[in-house]
Amino acid sequence: MMESQSGDAVEPTVLLVGTFDTKAVELASIRAAIERLDGSVITLDASVGGRSVEGAADIPADVVARAAGLTLAELGALERGTAVSAMQKGVEAKTLDLFERGQAHGVLCAAGAGAHLVAPAFQRLPLGVPKLIVTPLASGARVFEPFVGIRDVAIMHSVADIAGVNAVTEKIYAQAAGYIVGAVRAMAGVEGESPNGKPTVAVSMNGNTTAGVTEVRERMTELEFVAFHANGAGGRAMESLVAEGEFSAVLDYTTTELCGHEVGGLMDPGPDRMEGAGKAGLPQVLVPGCLDLITCGRPEEAEREFPGRVYYPHNPELTLVRLTADEMFRLGEVFARKANAARGPTAICVPMGGFSAPDRKGGLFWDPEADGAFVDALQAKLTGNVQLHLVDAHINEPSFVDVVVDSLRAMIARHTTAVAREGGVVNVNR
Amino acid sequence: MMESQSGDAVEPTVLLVGTFDTKAVELASIRAAIERLDGSVITLDASVGGRSVEGAADIPADVVARAAGLTLAELGALERGTAVSAMQKGVEAKTLDLFERGQAHGVLCAAGAGAHLVAPAFQRLPLGVPKLIVTPLASGARVFEPFVGIRDVAIMHSVADIAGVNAVTEKIYAQAAGYIVGAVRAMAGVEGESPNGKPTVAVSMNGNTTAGVTEVRERMTELEFVAFHANGAGGRAMESLVAEGEFSAVLDYTTTELCGHEVGGLMDPGPDRMEGAGKAGLPQVLVPGCLDLITCGRPEEAEREFPGRVYYPHNPELTLVRLTADEMFRLGEVFARKANAARGPTAICVPMGGFSAPDRKGGLFWDPEADGAFVDALQAKLTGNVQLHLVDAHINEPSFVDVVVDSLRAMIARHTTAVAREGGVVNVNR
Repeated sequence: MMESQSGDAVEPTVLLVGTFDTKAVELASIRAAIERLDGSVITLDASVGGRSVEGAADIPADVVARAAGLTLAELGALERGTAVSAMQKGVEAKTLDLFERGQAHGVLCAAGAGAHLVAPAFQRLPLGVPKLIVTPLASGARVFEPFVGIRDVAIMHSVADIAGVNAVTEKIYAQAAGYIVGAVRAMAGVEGESPNGKPTVAVSMNGNTTAGVTEVRERMTELEFVAFHANGAGGRAMESLVAEGEFSAVLDYTTTELCGHEVGGLMDPGPDRMEGAGKAGLPQVLVPGCLDLITCGRPEEAEREFPGRVYYPHNPELTLVRLTADEMFRLGEVFARKANAARGPTAICVPMGGFSAPDRKGGLFWDPEADGAFVDALQAKLTGNVQLHLVDAHINEPSFVDVVVDSLRAMIARHTTAVAREGGVVNVNR
Repeated sequence: MMESQSGDAVEPTVLLVGTFDTKAVELASIRAAIERLDGSVITLDASVGGRSVEGAADIPADVVARAAGLTLAELGALERGTAVSAMQKGVEAKTLDLFERGQAHGVLCAAGAGAHLVAPAFQRLPLGVPKLIVTPLASGARVFEPFVGIRDVAIMHSVADIAGVNAVTEKIYAQAAGYIVGAVRAMAGVEGESPNGKPTVAVSMNGNTTAGVTEVRERMTELEFVAFHANGAGGRAMESLVAEGEFSAVLDYTTTELCGHEVGGLMDPGPDRMEGAGKAGLPQVLVPGCLDLITCGRPEEAEREFPGRVYYPHNPELTLVRLTADEMFRLGEVFARKANAARGPTAICVPMGGFSAPDRKGGLFWDPEADGAFVDALQAKLTGNVQLHLVDAHINEPSFVDVVVDSLRAMIARHTTAVAREGGVVNVNR
């Protein structure tokens, strides 16, 4: 049993989203499967065709269209791409509304192309709300991004099309019902606080910086670290959860995604990376981890896009490309601008012995002049409220970790003092 | 409660696979979450490092390595790629063994790069066995293929790395436990027979042939159709389930994937497409649906790979490319060879009014000479036991569907008679 906002006990309820104009039979079968497991269901019709099937869904297409400011007739008259965008907004509005009222506890979508329409709404729901998409599109060369974004979405490959109730699809529908009912039940008892009461700190990491980050974690046992993979999606997820207040500090050890945005390659986190903690006034330590490189695809792709560079094969699919002194000067300016804008205590620790695994004395990317250009820009642009530590060690060396650990403790202490002075409450339990 | 092979009632049991050398704490937390939901757990250690953590997993790494013919020391001495391949075999062997003995009813993997090692084993399990992979890799530009293959695998984006038990990962682990326990429980009651007792027929389909296939389904209500999307993965999934005996007939209405293998583009189903039904001796009807084209990526990619062709923009990401008379003659030979090899009743229906939506009189791909080359090759190469119907209609026209429906009924009847004559049992309930 779950508590609604009014305090009444309610059954775990699944919001089932699909296109009832073409898949009413299939969605009815899924609804029945959920109900056989004693789950409650609310259905929502995301059809864009502009007709509402009477009684097919609890939230019919015309109500969804109206949430996007359109009548069903207006929706039906739109060109398909525009209609999809409009309905997407309607599905999002109705979905968020249901969750804010506590009337649904998990979401399930079974669809073909409709999965693309529904996924953005699911991605708006908080972490920990079960979100399952069942679709034949989850296969082959299709990519995860449009389905999961930066959220804990689960996607199940339906093998066959969502068409009919037969010996194959029955197994798909029954599994989907079991997955979502099981997850909704399981989450009813989860609080989402730090399980051990320690302050929770976000940390950015990748294969190149794992050694250093692991050493930080082992030394700072007073904190609980949540690690995000610095691959574009990971950094965006971290920024998003920082903005939602999930963390009490940020250790941005692997800021290479800034290069992905400023220079290129596969790991662009968008323009807002390394800004969330500063905006939220959280204590933070910034490290130029892998800021000497961008990550590209196969060797031939890397050479086509960035000719005449030094390349480092990370694995057969990913090639690291060394950045130049000019690029690193520019990154230093960006780094300084973002650090200067921070409202909370901020320190930058720079490992002068190299920013990544190949960037070390004797390594393929070792280029003190280029790394020095980054430092020059920092020193030219940083304002007084940001601490800068230039450390004569490699990013994964214990003597560099020493400085990071001290800085993070100092920034957290400074933040605690500042909050106490302002009469605020220090939230050490998140 | 589920029945084991020996008839004893057993608790629903989840096989939990991961790398216990680096993630023992995280996997223990997931195990505990499953047990809180009254699920049983068997753990399997897929670590490739060559050391076994005493007591960490029920099936320790040395037992898994031994299933691949290696000692742990031998595994540890291998180059990483080779060690991963070896351990992959071991995980597969142990996983299949557990399922064949009825000792596990669903599988869960929580891992980083380890997810790639474990996924092939999960893909070997039958349709309807819940298979969930939780990983930060399920994001960004990564593709579904290595995780799902042609099976009903579900993948959940973990948002943060599987590292530590904290306010974020706790929500991920709890959801994962809920998903897999819920799905295993739900599947305990599912038989997997056709839910309405009708014979089940596999049919290949894509957007271009949906109209024709839908008309077939509406007319042949005595059959239950399972639709597979002709996009490479869908055709492979269909062939695989045909081989496993899931169907009593095949309507291969959309054989365009043969072009994907013979000519190129994005939708290569491998060399065995359109062979499974023939090998199994099933009645089948073959249609050259979209055999006039291949599917490529964005327009500029299509033009680079296949210059000087006629192109048809299917959507911004996919471009259809018209094939030439030479290519279609070659495809006719392949089509005939595969049809000739069939052991069961086989008919080919050719819509002379066009093989796809743009291949019709006045359409962008209309080219009777090229389509005629396909027919020439068929007529030259087909042997006597294959029926050939040349129909003066477009692939989605009712008069073409008439012939397909009659042919499919005739092939099924012929198969029924043949089986009865041989004293066999006609399996009409699958």
